[in-house]
Amino acid sequence: MSDTKRALAEAGLPSFTAMQVLGRGKGHGDLEKIRAALQQRHIDPDHVKDVIEFVPEEPRLKSKRMITLVVSDDKKELAVETIMKANQTGKSGDGKIFIIHALGSYSVHTGESGNITLD
Amino acid sequence: MSDTKRALAEAGLPSFTAMQVLGRGKGHGDLEKIRAALQQRHIDPDHVKDVIEFVPEEPRLKSKRMITLVVSDDKKELAVETIMKANQTGKSGDGKIFIIHALGSYSVHTGESGNITLD
Amino acid sequence: MSDTKRALAEAGLPSFTAMQVLGRGKGHGDLEKIRAALQQRHIDPDHVKDVIEFVPEEPRLKSKRMITLVVSDDKKELAVETIMKANQTGKSGDGKIFIIHALGSYSVHTGESGNITLD
Repeated sequence: MSDTKRALAEAGLPSFTAMQVLGRGKGHGDLEKIRAALQQRHIDPDHVKDVIEFVPEEPRLKSKRMITLVVSDDKKELAVETIMKANQTGKSGDGKIFIIHALGSYSVHTGESGNITLD
Repeated sequence: MSDTKRALAEAGLPSFTAMQVLGRGKGHGDLEKIRAALQQRHIDPDHVKDVIEFVPEEPRLKSKRMITLVVSDDKKELAVETIMKANQTGKSGDGKIFIIHALGSYSVHTGESGNITLD
Repeated sequence: MSDTKRALAEAGLPSFTAMQVLGRGKGHGDLEKIRAALQQRHIDPDHVKDVIEFVPEEPRLKSKRMITLVVSDDKKELAVETIMKANQTGKSGDGKIFIIHALGSYSVHTGESGNITLD
Protein backbone atom coordinates (compact mmCIF):
# COMPACT_ATOMS: atom_id res chain seq x y z
CA MET A 1 0.00 0.00 0.00
CA SER A 2 2.73 2.38 0.98
CA ASP A 3 4.65 1.54 -2.23
CA THR A 4 1.57 2.23 -4.32
CA LYS A 5 0.99 5.52 -2.52
CA ARG A 6 4.59 6.63 -3.13
CA ALA A 7 4.58 5.50 -6.77
CA LEU A 8 1.33 7.38 -7.50
CA ALA A 9 2.60 10.55 -5.82
CA GLU A 10 5.83 10.35 -7.82
CA ALA A 11 3.81 9.94 -11.01
CA GLY A 12 1.93 13.14 -10.19
CA LEU A 13 -1.27 11.31 -9.24
CA PRO A 14 -1.41 11.75 -5.45
CA SER A 15 -5.19 11.62 -4.87
CA PHE A 16 -6.81 8.27 -4.26
CA THR A 17 -9.10 6.33 -1.96
CA ALA A 18 -8.34 2.93 -0.45
CA MET A 19 -10.74 0.49 1.13
CA GLN A 20 -10.40 -2.77 2.98
CA VAL A 21 -12.20 -5.46 1.00
CA LEU A 22 -12.49 -9.22 0.82
CA GLY A 23 -11.94 -10.76 -2.54
CA ARG A 24 -11.24 -13.79 -4.58
CA GLY A 25 -10.12 -14.40 -8.12
CA LYS A 26 -10.44 -17.59 -10.10
CA GLY A 27 -9.04 -19.17 -6.99
CA HIS A 28 -6.88 -21.98 -8.21
CA GLY A 29 -3.96 -20.50 -6.33
CA ASP A 30 -4.16 -22.92 -3.46
CA LEU A 31 -4.57 -25.90 -5.77
CA GLU A 32 -1.47 -24.89 -7.70
CA LYS A 33 0.55 -24.56 -4.53
CA ILE A 34 -0.56 -27.97 -3.29
CA ARG A 35 0.15 -29.59 -6.64
CA ALA A 36 3.63 -28.03 -6.78
CA ALA A 37 4.40 -29.10 -3.21
CA LEU A 38 3.33 -32.69 -3.91
CA GLN A 39 5.31 -32.85 -7.16
CA GLN A 40 8.40 -31.58 -5.40
CA ARG A 41 8.16 -34.54 -3.06
CA HIS A 42 8.08 -36.88 -6.13
CA ILE A 43 4.66 -38.20 -5.31
CA ASP A 44 2.93 -40.32 -7.99
CA PRO A 45 0.88 -37.98 -10.31
CA ASP A 46 -2.17 -40.24 -9.92
CA HIS A 47 -1.94 -39.89 -6.19
CA VAL A 48 -1.63 -36.10 -6.54
CA LYS A 49 -4.89 -36.14 -8.49
CA ASP A 50 -6.59 -38.02 -5.65
CA VAL A 51 -5.42 -35.44 -3.13
CA ILE A 52 -6.47 -32.53 -5.33
CA GLU A 53 -10.01 -33.85 -5.39
CA PHE A 54 -10.34 -33.25 -1.68
CA VAL A 55 -9.29 -29.62 -1.86
CA PRO A 56 -12.36 -27.41 -1.54
CA GLU A 57 -13.15 -25.75 -4.86
CA GLU A 58 -14.19 -22.51 -3.21
CA PRO A 59 -11.23 -20.73 -1.75
CA ARG A 60 -11.65 -18.46 1.25
CA LEU A 61 -12.05 -14.76 0.63
CA LYS A 62 -8.79 -12.94 1.21
CA SER A 63 -8.34 -9.53 2.75
CA LYS A 64 -7.29 -7.07 0.06
CA ARG A 65 -7.19 -3.36 -0.59
CA MET A 66 -9.24 -1.79 -3.34
CA ILE A 67 -8.02 1.58 -4.49
CA THR A 68 -10.04 4.10 -6.49
CA LEU A 69 -8.33 6.76 -8.50
CA VAL A 70 -9.96 9.38 -10.70
CA VAL A 71 -7.71 10.91 -13.37
CA SER A 72 -8.09 12.90 -16.56
CA ASP A 73 -8.18 10.88 -19.81
CA ASP A 74 -4.56 11.62 -20.73
CA LYS A 75 -3.33 10.22 -17.40
CA LYS A 76 -5.21 6.90 -17.72
CA GLU A 77 -2.34 4.82 -19.07
CA LEU A 78 0.13 6.37 -16.63
CA ALA A 79 -2.17 5.44 -13.73
CA VAL A 80 -2.58 1.83 -14.92
CA GLU A 81 1.17 1.38 -15.46
CA THR A 82 2.05 2.94 -12.12
CA ILE A 83 -0.35 0.75 -10.13
CA MET A 84 0.67 -2.35 -12.07
CA LYS A 85 4.37 -1.78 -11.54
CA ALA A 86 3.98 -1.12 -7.81
CA ASN A 87 1.87 -4.24 -7.23
CA GLN A 88 3.37 -6.86 -9.52
CA THR A 89 4.86 -9.71 -7.51
CA GLY A 90 5.00 -12.24 -10.34
CA LYS A 91 2.46 -14.45 -8.60
CA SER A 92 -1.26 -14.85 -9.13
CA GLY A 93 -3.40 -12.86 -6.71
CA ASP A 94 -1.82 -9.52 -7.62
CA GLY A 95 -5.25 -8.22 -8.41
CA LYS A 96 -7.07 -6.54 -11.25
CA ILE A 97 -7.47 -3.01 -12.53
CA PHE A 98 -10.80 -1.94 -14.00
CA ILE A 99 -11.44 1.26 -15.93
CA ILE A 100 -14.74 3.10 -15.56
CA HIS A 101 -15.72 6.34 -17.26
CA ALA A 102 -16.47 9.24 -14.89
CA LEU A 103 -18.95 11.72 -16.38
CA GLY A 104 -18.03 14.53 -14.06
CA SER A 105 -16.27 15.54 -10.89
CA TYR A 106 -16.80 18.20 -8.24
CA SER A 107 -14.69 19.58 -5.45
CA VAL A 108 -16.84 19.86 -2.32
CA HIS A 109 -14.47 22.46 -0.88
CA THR A 110 -14.53 24.91 -3.80
CA GLY A 111 -17.72 23.88 -5.56
CA GLU A 112 -15.73 23.72 -8.81
CA SER A 113 -16.49 21.02 -11.35
CA GLY A 114 -14.70 19.52 -14.32
CA ASN A 115 -11.11 18.53 -14.98
CA ILE A 116 -9.81 21.29 -12.73
CA THR A 117 -10.91 19.25 -9.69
CA LEU A 118 -8.61 16.38 -10.69
CA ASP A 119 -5.38 18.36 -10.88
CA MET B 1 -22.39 -14.09 1.79
CA SER B 2 -21.29 -17.68 1.67
CA ASP B 3 -24.38 -18.62 -0.37
CA THR B 4 -23.66 -15.83 -2.85
CA LYS B 5 -20.04 -16.95 -3.12
CA ARG B 6 -21.06 -20.54 -3.82
CA ALA B 7 -23.79 -19.55 -6.29
CA LEU B 8 -21.40 -17.32 -8.25
CA ALA B 9 -18.72 -20.02 -8.35
CA GLU B 10 -21.28 -22.57 -9.58
CA ALA B 11 -22.38 -20.13 -12.29
CA GLY B 12 -18.78 -19.90 -13.48
CA LEU B 13 -18.27 -16.39 -12.08
CA PRO B 14 -15.92 -16.98 -9.14
CA SER B 15 -14.11 -13.62 -9.01
CA PHE B 16 -15.58 -10.83 -6.93
CA THR B 17 -14.85 -8.30 -4.21
CA ALA B 18 -16.91 -7.76 -1.07
CA MET B 19 -16.89 -4.82 1.27
CA GLN B 20 -18.50 -4.01 4.58
CA VAL B 21 -20.74 -1.00 4.13
CA LEU B 22 -23.51 0.86 5.91
CA GLY B 23 -26.63 1.52 3.95
CA ARG B 24 -30.23 2.42 3.92
CA GLY B 25 -32.98 2.17 1.37
CA LYS B 26 -36.26 4.06 1.36
CA GLY B 27 -36.44 3.03 4.97
CA HIS B 28 -40.11 2.45 5.64
CA GLY B 29 -39.28 -1.04 6.81
CA ASP B 30 -39.49 -0.22 10.48
CA LEU B 31 -42.73 1.70 10.05
CA GLU B 32 -44.31 -1.23 8.27
CA LYS B 33 -43.26 -3.61 11.04
CA ILE B 34 -44.68 -1.31 13.72
CA ARG B 35 -47.93 -0.83 11.82
CA ALA B 36 -48.32 -4.57 11.35
CA ALA B 37 -47.60 -5.25 15.03
CA LEU B 38 -50.17 -2.68 16.16
CA GLN B 39 -52.81 -3.96 13.74
CA GLN B 40 -52.28 -7.49 14.98
CA ARG B 41 -53.17 -6.29 18.45
CA HIS B 42 -56.46 -4.86 17.07
CA ILE B 43 -55.55 -1.30 17.99
CA ASP B 44 -57.79 1.48 16.60
CA PRO B 45 -56.36 2.59 13.16
CA ASP B 46 -56.56 6.25 14.25
CA HIS B 47 -54.45 5.42 17.27
CA VAL B 48 -51.95 3.57 15.06
CA LYS B 49 -51.61 6.75 12.98
CA ASP B 50 -50.82 8.74 16.12
CA VAL B 51 -48.08 6.29 17.09
CA ILE B 52 -46.61 6.21 13.57
CA GLU B 53 -46.12 9.96 13.72
CA PHE B 54 -43.61 9.56 16.51
CA VAL B 55 -41.47 7.05 14.66
CA PRO B 56 -38.34 8.79 13.41
CA GLU B 57 -38.44 9.16 9.63
CA GLU B 58 -34.74 8.52 9.25
CA PRO B 59 -33.92 4.91 9.95
CA ARG B 60 -30.49 3.95 11.23
CA LEU B 61 -27.90 2.82 8.72
CA LYS B 62 -27.65 -0.95 8.60
CA SER B 63 -24.50 -2.99 8.17
CA LYS B 64 -24.52 -4.57 4.72
CA ARG B 65 -22.16 -6.14 2.23
CA MET B 66 -21.54 -4.57 -1.12
CA ILE B 67 -20.15 -6.91 -3.74
CA THR B 68 -18.47 -5.87 -6.96
CA LEU B 69 -18.28 -8.24 -9.87
CA VAL B 70 -16.78 -7.57 -13.29
CA VAL B 71 -17.98 -9.86 -16.08
CA SER B 72 -18.02 -9.88 -19.86
CA ASP B 73 -21.17 -8.53 -21.52
CA ASP B 74 -22.62 -11.95 -22.29
CA LYS B 75 -22.48 -12.95 -18.61
CA LYS B 76 -24.28 -9.83 -17.35
CA GLU B 77 -27.74 -11.36 -17.06
CA LEU B 78 -26.37 -14.54 -15.55
CA ALA B 79 -24.59 -12.50 -12.87
CA VAL B 80 -27.71 -10.46 -12.03
CA GLU B 81 -29.91 -13.56 -11.84
CA THR B 82 -27.39 -15.46 -9.73
CA ILE B 83 -26.96 -12.67 -7.18
CA MET B 84 -30.69 -12.04 -7.06
CA LYS B 85 -31.56 -15.67 -6.50
CA ALA B 86 -28.97 -16.11 -3.75
CA ASN B 87 -30.09 -12.99 -1.86
CA GLN B 88 -33.86 -12.94 -2.23
CA THR B 89 -35.57 -13.36 1.14
CA GLY B 90 -38.97 -12.03 0.09
CA LYS B 91 -38.64 -9.07 2.45
CA SER B 92 -37.63 -5.48 1.78
CA GLY B 93 -33.99 -4.71 2.53
CA ASP B 94 -32.67 -7.40 0.17
CA GLY B 95 -30.63 -4.73 -1.57
CA LYS B 96 -30.10 -3.42 -5.05
CA ILE B 97 -27.97 -4.37 -8.03
CA PHE B 98 -26.51 -1.62 -10.20
CA ILE B 99 -24.87 -2.12 -13.59
CA ILE B 100 -21.90 0.02 -14.62
CA HIS B 101 -19.98 -0.24 -17.86
CA ALA B 102 -16.28 -1.10 -17.48
CA LEU B 103 -14.18 0.30 -20.33
CA GLY B 104 -11.27 -2.02 -19.75
CA SER B 105 -9.62 -4.46 -17.40
CA TYR B 106 -6.05 -5.47 -16.61
CA SER B 107 -4.47 -8.34 -14.74
CA VAL B 108 -1.73 -6.94 -12.50
CA HIS B 109 -0.08 -10.36 -12.39
CA THR B 110 0.28 -10.92 -16.13
CA GLY B 111 -0.06 -7.37 -17.44
CA GLU B 112 -2.70 -8.63 -19.87
CA SER B 113 -5.69 -6.48 -20.69
CA GLY B 114 -9.13 -7.05 -22.16
CA ASN B 115 -11.73 -9.77 -21.80
CA ILE B 116 -9.08 -12.40 -21.20
CA THR B 117 -8.53 -10.99 -17.71
CA LEU B 118 -12.15 -11.72 -16.80
CA ASP B 119 -12.16 -15.42 -17.64
CA MET C 1 -22.38 11.71 8.16
CA SER C 2 -25.57 12.21 10.08
CA ASP C 3 -26.01 15.67 8.49
CA THR C 4 -25.54 14.18 5.03
CA LYS C 5 -28.06 11.46 5.79
CA ARG C 6 -30.65 13.97 6.98
CA ALA C 7 -30.04 16.34 4.06
CA LEU C 8 -30.42 13.53 1.51
CA ALA C 9 -33.61 12.27 3.15
CA GLU C 10 -35.05 15.80 3.17
CA ALA C 11 -34.18 16.15 -0.53
CA GLY C 12 -36.17 12.99 -1.24
CA LEU C 13 -33.05 10.88 -1.86
CA PRO C 14 -32.96 8.61 1.20
CA SER C 15 -31.18 5.54 -0.24
CA PHE C 16 -27.40 5.42 -0.10
CA THR C 17 -24.43 3.31 0.93
CA ALA C 18 -21.53 4.49 3.05
CA MET C 19 -18.14 2.90 3.47
CA GLN C 20 -15.14 3.55 5.65
CA VAL C 21 -12.17 4.36 3.44
CA LEU C 22 -8.70 5.83 3.65
CA GLY C 23 -7.91 8.63 1.30
CA ARG C 24 -5.75 11.50 0.38
CA GLY C 25 -6.07 14.46 -1.94
CA LYS C 26 -3.31 16.59 -3.36
CA GLY C 27 -2.15 16.72 0.23
CA HIS C 28 -0.76 20.18 0.64
CA GLY C 29 -3.13 20.71 3.53
CA ASP C 30 -0.48 20.14 6.18
CA LEU C 31 2.04 22.31 4.38
CA GLU C 32 -0.46 25.16 4.21
CA LYS C 33 -1.20 24.89 7.91
CA ILE C 34 2.50 24.93 8.79
CA ARG C 35 3.18 27.89 6.51
CA ALA C 36 0.28 29.84 8.00
CA ALA C 37 1.41 29.06 11.56
CA LEU C 38 4.96 30.20 10.82
CA GLN C 39 3.79 33.38 9.11
CA GLN C 40 1.58 34.24 12.05
CA ARG C 41 4.67 34.18 14.24
CA HIS C 42 6.35 36.70 11.89
CA ILE C 43 9.12 34.31 10.93
CA ASP C 44 11.38 35.34 8.02
CA PRO C 45 9.83 33.96 4.73
CA ASP C 46 13.21 32.50 3.71
CA HIS C 47 13.33 30.60 6.97
CA VAL C 48 9.79 29.35 6.39
CA LYS C 49 10.93 27.94 3.04
CA ASP C 50 13.74 26.04 4.79
CA VAL C 51 11.29 24.50 7.24
CA ILE C 52 8.82 23.56 4.51
CA GLU C 53 11.50 21.53 2.79
CA PHE C 54 11.61 19.13 5.70
CA VAL C 55 7.89 18.43 5.69
CA PRO C 56 7.27 15.03 4.15
CA GLU C 57 5.66 15.38 0.74
CA GLU C 58 3.46 12.34 1.18
CA PRO C 59 0.78 13.00 3.74
CA ARG C 60 -0.71 10.14 5.71
CA LEU C 61 -3.92 8.59 4.50
CA LYS C 62 -6.90 9.94 6.41
CA SER C 63 -9.97 8.02 7.47
CA LYS C 64 -12.93 9.17 5.39
CA ARG C 65 -16.40 8.05 4.39
CA MET C 66 -17.23 7.30 0.80
CA ILE C 67 -20.91 7.41 -0.01
CA THR C 68 -22.53 5.91 -3.08
CA LEU C 69 -25.88 7.15 -4.25
CA VAL C 70 -27.80 6.00 -7.32
CA VAL C 71 -30.42 8.43 -8.61
CA SER C 72 -32.40 9.00 -11.80
CA ASP C 73 -30.92 11.49 -14.28
CA ASP C 74 -33.23 14.34 -13.30
CA LYS C 75 -32.12 14.10 -9.65
CA LYS C 76 -28.40 14.24 -10.45
CA GLU C 77 -27.90 17.94 -9.80
CA LEU C 78 -30.05 17.85 -6.69
CA ALA C 79 -27.90 15.02 -5.30
CA VAL C 80 -24.63 16.84 -6.01
CA GLU C 81 -25.89 20.09 -4.46
CA THR C 82 -27.28 18.34 -1.39
CA ILE C 83 -24.07 16.43 -0.67
CA MET C 84 -21.94 19.50 -1.33
CA LYS C 85 -23.97 21.73 0.96
CA ALA C 86 -23.96 19.20 3.80
CA ASN C 87 -20.19 18.64 3.62
CA GLN C 88 -18.74 22.04 2.84
CA THR C 89 -16.59 23.30 5.70
CA GLY C 90 -14.70 25.93 3.71
CA LYS C 91 -11.43 24.06 4.20
CA SER C 92 -9.55 21.76 1.87
CA GLY C 93 -10.14 18.06 2.53
CA ASP C 94 -13.91 18.31 2.11
CA GLY C 95 -13.72 15.62 -0.53
CA LYS C 96 -14.77 15.07 -4.10
CA ILE C 97 -17.92 13.97 -5.87
CA PHE C 98 -17.64 11.83 -8.98
CA ILE C 99 -20.47 11.02 -11.38
CA ILE C 100 -20.67 7.62 -13.03
CA HIS C 101 -23.37 6.44 -15.42
CA ALA C 102 -25.38 3.44 -14.22
CA LEU C 103 -26.71 1.33 -17.11
CA GLY C 104 -29.36 -0.37 -15.07
CA SER C 105 -30.66 -1.16 -11.62
CA TYR C 106 -32.51 -4.06 -10.03
CA SER C 107 -34.33 -4.54 -6.76
CA VAL C 108 -33.30 -7.90 -5.30
CA HIS C 109 -36.49 -7.99 -3.22
CA THR C 110 -39.00 -7.54 -6.04
CA GLY C 111 -36.91 -8.52 -9.06
CA GLU C 112 -37.98 -5.28 -10.74
CA SER C 113 -35.52 -3.38 -12.89
CA GLY C 114 -35.28 0.15 -14.22
CA ASN C 115 -35.97 3.56 -12.78
CA ILE C 116 -38.76 2.20 -10.61
CA THR C 117 -36.13 0.65 -8.34
CA LEU C 118 -34.64 4.08 -7.60
CA ASP C 119 -37.79 5.81 -6.38
